[in-house]
Amino acid sequence: MTAIDTLFRNARLTDGRVVDIAVGDGDIVSIAATPQAHGAVGETRDLGQRLVLPGLVDGHIHLDKGFIGDEWKPHRPCTAGFSVRERVRFEKEALAGARPIAVRAAALIDLCVAHGTTQMRSHVDIDAQVGLRNFEQVVAARDDHRDKVSVQIVAFPQSGIVTSPGTAELLDEAVRAGADLVGGLDPAGHDADIDGHLDAIFGIADRRGVGIDIHLHDGGQLGIFEIEQIARRTKALGHGGKVTISHAYALGEVPRDIVQRTAHLLAEAGVAILTNAPGAHAFPPVLLLRQAGVNVFAGNDNIRDSWWPYGDGDLLERAMIIGYRSGFSTDSELATAFDMVTADAARALGLAGYGVVEGGPADFVVLDARHVQEAVVARPKPRDVYKRGRLVARNGAIVTAARK
Amino acid sequence: MTAIDTLFRNARLTDGRVVDIAVGDGDIVSIAATPQAHGAVGETRDLGQRLVLPGLVDGHIHLDKGFIGDEWKPHRPCTAGFSVRERVRFEKEALAGARPIAVRAAALIDLCVAHGTTQMRSHVDIDAQVGLRNFEQVVAARDDHRDKVSVQIVAFPQSGIVTSPGTAELLDEAVRAGADLVGGLDPAGHDADIDGHLDAIFGIADRRGVGIDIHLHDGGQLGIFEIEQIARRTKALGHGGKVTISHAYALGEVPRDIVQRTAHLLAEAGVAILTNAPGAHAFPPVLLLRQAGVNVFAGNDNIRDSWWPYGDGDLLERAMIIGYRSGFSTDSELATAFDMVTADAARALGLAGYGVVEGGPADFVVLDARHVQEAVVARPKPRDVYKRGRLVARNGAIVTAARK
Repeated sequence: MTAIDTLFRNARLTDGRVVDIAVGDGDIVSIAATPQAHGAVGETRDLGQRLVLPGLVDGHIHLDKGFIGDEWKPHRPCTAGFSVRERVRFEKEALAGARPIAVRAAALIDLCVAHGTTQMRSHVDIDAQVGLRNFEQVVAARDDHRDKVSVQIVAFPQSGIVTSPGTAELLDEAVRAGADLVGGLDPAGHDADIDGHLDAIFGIADRRGVGIDIHLHDGGQLGIFEIEQIARRTKALGHGGKVTISHAYALGEVPRDIVQRTAHLLAEAGVAILTNAPGAHAFPPVLLLRQAGVNVFAGNDNIRDSWWPYGDGDLLERAMIIGYRSGFSTDSELATAFDMVTADAARALGLAGYGVVEGGPADFVVLDARHVQEAVVARPKPRDVYKRGRLVARNGAIVTAARK
Repeated sequence: MTAIDTLFRNARLTDGRVVDIAVGDGDIVSIAATPQAHGAVGETRDLGQRLVLPGLVDGHIHLDKGFIGDEWKPHRPCTAGFSVRERVRFEKEALAGARPIAVRAAALIDLCVAHGTTQMRSHVDIDAQVGLRNFEQVVAARDDHRDKVSVQIVAFPQSGIVTSPGTAELLDEAVRAGADLVGGLDPAGHDADIDGHLDAIFGIADRRGVGIDIHLHDGGQLGIFEIEQIARRTKALGHGGKVTISHAYALGEVPRDIVQRTAHLLAEAGVAILTNAPGAHAFPPVLLLRQAGVNVFAGNDNIRDSWWPYGDGDLLERAMIIGYRSGFSTDSELATAFDMVTADAARALGLAGYGVVEGGPADFVVLDARHVQEAVVARPKPRDVYKRGRLVARNGAIVTAARK
């Protein structure tokens, strides 16, 4: 019989059952509706039928960019509409005067963990100018905070690849040094070389056996064409399930019949779509894509950085915003918004044993809500967050004793 | 020398000054950067340089509709796109089984006040079926909670006027019984009689000397035409400054040159626009309208009711959502979002002496933020809320001692 470190009694699961959850060595040993015989039990906690959610999964964040934990950095107006290249230049200036990533990433991680995030995928800027400095600092932050949150790292060419000499080699080097995925950025809009850009990142992914997560802001038919190219390459290389297109604004900009056709290609190739329902932008039609079999999941993306002044790291708020902007109102639709920041994000990230399930890691969030629908619309702030069975945050503050 | 009930020391104003605020008999007696001589001071509170915002103003809420404080009521899918008439029918069924307005309005008021709302404008359904029952119950709720929040009431024909016989007379009766404004609803889309609908409500407004606040969901050129008719009537009757068009989706749906032309009519007539940046809908372009001189202000509108499952009553969150959906990012833009839930809403509601100003009522909110921009993006939840100088809510909970 496995030793039980903590027995959580009277836990309300998302399916409505009230159960006892036994945790040993960081994993969920058993979930039972009636009291079970256990070996030695270290500690018993009565959850009083509070709702237990699986740890929230942030499918897209930038740990090297945020200004939380730093001075307020006012935004600049765009000179003539939104230009990724112009924003990258502004960002470099703002980051030049910023506190170290160690400080800012720690503040951002703590904010996210306090809201219930136990897993995240962070993109990290890599180009010839910053080299691997940001990457190395985010790796250090990941390691420093691993008792609270698990972080996947995407080597992200924020300044492009084809038009940023030396970046392809740096991306490859980052992957060899432990980056979990290789990223990309607007092969047409930024690099003006769709095949050159995709050759580089699919080449690295193929050679190093890692996944891909591409930022795609390119709109309309151009963006759709790029999505099709990515789906085709994914299928040809057998990378299904390991490729994400982040944002994919184009899917929110073209007629529904074109979205339908593209959705089938994505589903067939096993390419997932990440959205954060971004501000004033069009974004992919979530239900249409999901009905076609595409995994559409969510993440916070930029949080109070040079790209975006908003965000508080709360993935239940992100689910609310996605539901709000998508016009979700039925219980089934609200559950979809919830799935996008939990099970579906976990699937896109390839997380094993995810969820409040026997044998899986004991990552969960305890809060006062009757069900997931209420969790999404009310987003109650008092939350207890557990990572591998240990309390890491309570009522919005990190429990420092949880750090080893 | 006026007697001082409470001296608030070290208050950070929104302009950055750190001052002492002296409150006597519910009003702000003085604001001073250096200690002043006062007569007897009842109590001194050191705010420790926390930010002091003027009490938040909810320009549009429905106190008779919310299900907070009641069972969860799942939403139904629309049968074929959004139809106001169909939603009204669903709502009547859901409300038939709901707890009394006294219970639900109290829960909604407490949620809003806990977030810092000290003033609101509530629409209340009136039609031949419900008669004045909802109105009377909201009047009672307004009176029961007047120590915490001041409520304006709009007599709102949720089932139409021309197509709902007897409603015009009931609206008039409600105004005679104390409703502050007369409402309207889609003169074309709901009643199919623009002049008939507007004759009725402008007639009541003119006869009884009250303001007007019309729900207008009608889209495209039709909605623009109705907006023009409302502006024309407002100007002809000299009602400038007393008329609001709520929602005005059409302004978000037509080309910018048409919005420009309409904006000039609205500005000239003194008609304000209310928006809550509603979910998946198009909504008015806030900056364009404001630049033309139109007062565009905000409110929460539906909060967890039959129309909308979302909302937590927090007007700083509403400001965030409006900024987010409008693509606001500069400090000036974020300040605009803040103004929409404070000074501009107060202006639309005709509130005298609004703001943290000498001689005005001592309605304010104290929280941890460096400035209004941070208040909008971070929406820190620990807040102390003062109504007429008395603490009415702290850290999300109503201070019950404040009730007489």
